[in-house]
Formats: sequence, structure tokens, C-alpha cells
Amino acid sequence: MSEESPSQGPRVRAVPPGDDRERLLCPDCGYVAYQNPLIVVGSVVTWPGDGEDRILLCRRAIEPRKGYWTLPAGFMEEHETTQAGAMREAWEEARARIAIDALLAVYDIPRISQVQLIFRARLTAPEFSAGPESLDVALFRWDEIPWGELAFPTVHWALREHHARIGQTAFAPAVNPTPDALARWETML
Amino acid sequence: MSEESPSQGPRVRAVPPGDDRERLLCPDCGYVAYQNPLIVVGSVVTWPGDGEDRILLCRRAIEPRKGYWTLPAGFMEEHETTQAGAMREAWEEARARIAIDALLAVYDIPRISQVQLIFRARLTAPEFSAGPESLDVALFRWDEIPWGELAFPTVHWALREHHARIGQTAFAPAVNPTPDALARWETML
Repeated sequence: MSEESPSQGPRVRAVPPGDDRERLLCPDCGYVAYQNPLIVVGSVVTWPGDGEDRILLCRRAIEPRKGYWTLPAGFMEEHETTQAGAMREAWEEARARIAIDALLAVYDIPRISQVQLIFRARLTAPEFSAGPESLDVALFRWDEIPWGELAFPTVHWALREHHARIGQTAFAPAVNPTPDALARWETML
Repeated sequence: MSEESPSQGPRVRAVPPGDDRERLLCPDCGYVAYQNPLIVVGSVVTWPGDGEDRILLCRRAIEPRKGYWTLPAGFMEEHETTQAGAMREAWEEARARIAIDALLAVYDIPRISQVQLIFRARLTAPEFSAGPESLDVALFRWDEIPWGELAFPTVHWALREHHARIGQTAFAPAVNPTPDALARWETML
């Protein structure tokens, strides 16, 4: 899933017969490697706490953004549903069992051809620990979230959208924030 | 995007070092072809009509399900957003310009590793015609929809979910129907 062309395998760009755009072809064996956007599935996971729900975050043990905090999320695999993928990621990264409640956000990241589906979910038991891709996993109050040490913009966005929907049961999922929303959130840091 | 392994290129299944599942490898050149779920983007497109909005459907000119009616929809391409992809498909299949209004449904089809994002949209002008992948494009009243000649189950599902949300402005997107909903819809045919 590197953005660089591999030194072998499909590595030449050309328009296959009947197609309307360049695809990646292997000059050795003729294979056409269709490249398609990748789906990331993840969740904002909560557990009830004194006064307010706590939010589960994972500190990344791997690049990119090693050492920074993120939501349990990752690439959807074949032959799973989006919700099953988000549950698998919560297990792999945080050894957490979750129940999914709603689709919180759909983020488009066309630069890297990625679509992120972020769910709202609850821990089904107050048990979690760092999986192989995490250095640490912890529950945070809203005012304890390490805003300056979040791994990716979409983690920040999803946390804000989650906070704005506390107590709401049926809502349209968030999309990429407007410049106005980004500017407003910036002043809150 | 065939489900069969090609006769050349990546075609051997094995677990790469550091991975936790089988991937498709090319025994000739060593390339690892990660296979990921594909995103289909499409829309239920309407145009105001006497008494009720009309719904745009396309009759497929290509297999699978050639001759059957479908929504304008197709595989999302790299470096586009989900909404831009749905707009592109409306143009390619129906020569229609659309404005997207809301995310209507997210359908998981794990058997074929597909996620469908279906939007609610409006024609921006009452102009459309069959693109190269369509035999015909037409606007239908609800009671004119060719229910017995729809191309795919998700077309049927999305039309039902659209109809159930007429007049609603903010709603959670539909997911795969429950067995109860499927049984209820069956009795309506």
C-alpha cells in the first residue's frame, strides 16, 4: 500500500483497451493492477465515567505518526462488513470489544485515495490493553484529550463531531469539515 | 476486477512476512497484490414532477444484468471524493448533472468485498440520455418503477429507503435491510 511504484510487478502506466484512463500494468507479465480507493474503518469508543463518558485512544507503535494518539482504525479487509472491520480494529489495536451504535462520519481523503468510515461505539466491558500496533491505550475525559499529540486530522475531526452529537440518536454522518469549522476548532486548542 | 485469479500476474496465495493473512503473490516477479474491498458510489436521482418527484433509472447496456434497470452507480476511482464519484457516474451512465443532498445508504456486500455508498441527489436540469454503459435512461413515478426488472438487490433497497425518507432532511443513512424489512418489501411487489 506504498504510494511508490514497486521495483517489480505492475509499474508501467498505460490505458488498457476499452478503458478511459491509465492503469498500472506489469511489463513482465501483462497483468493490469486496478488501483482503487481504500476504505479505513474505525470508531470513537466510549465507556461511562463519573459525569461524562471517557473516550478510548491508542498511542501508535508504528509509523506513520508513531507515538501519537489515534482512534482504533485501519484498512478494511476483504469479505468483512464495515462494522465487522471496525470491531476487528478495536480488538487488534486496543484488545477492546465494542458495540457499534451509529455511523459518525464519512471522510474523503482524495489525495491518498482513502475513504474513512468512523462509527460511534461503546466498550462492552471496561477491559482493554495495547495490541501489537499500539504503545498504550487509555480512556480520556474530554478535557484530557491530548489535542496536540493526535496522529491525524481525521482523529481530531471525529472527536469534535462525536462531542457535538452527545445525546443525539439519529443524525446524518459528518463529512469533511468546512474551513469555518476548522478555524473554529483551531481556536479551541 | 474479476473474481477469478488471472492466468498471469499475482495468482499464488501465501502469508507475506509480518502479515497475518494470505495475500495474492506473483510467482514470476514477487509482487504482493493487496486486495481490498471496492467502493461503489451512486445515487437515487430525482426531478420534480406532477404530484411527486420522478426517479431516474438507467437500463444496463453491459453485463452483469444487461437490460435490467439500475441507479447511476459504479466503482469509485482514485483521487476523487465519494460525492465526485457519484456525480461522475451520473454523467457517464445517464449524461445527467446532479446535486447531492444527503448520504442515503451504506450497503455492505462482504461476499464480493464491496461497500456501496448511495446518495440522495437531484437533477440540476431536466436533461439526460444514455451514456455508453446504458441502453436507456428514464424518469419513473413510484408506481411505474419496473420492480421485476431491477438489476441488483441494492437498487431495490435504495429505492425503498429513499421513498421512506421523502420530506426528511437529516437522517441516519440506511444499512442492509433486516430480514423483516426484506419480507415486507417482498409483499409489496
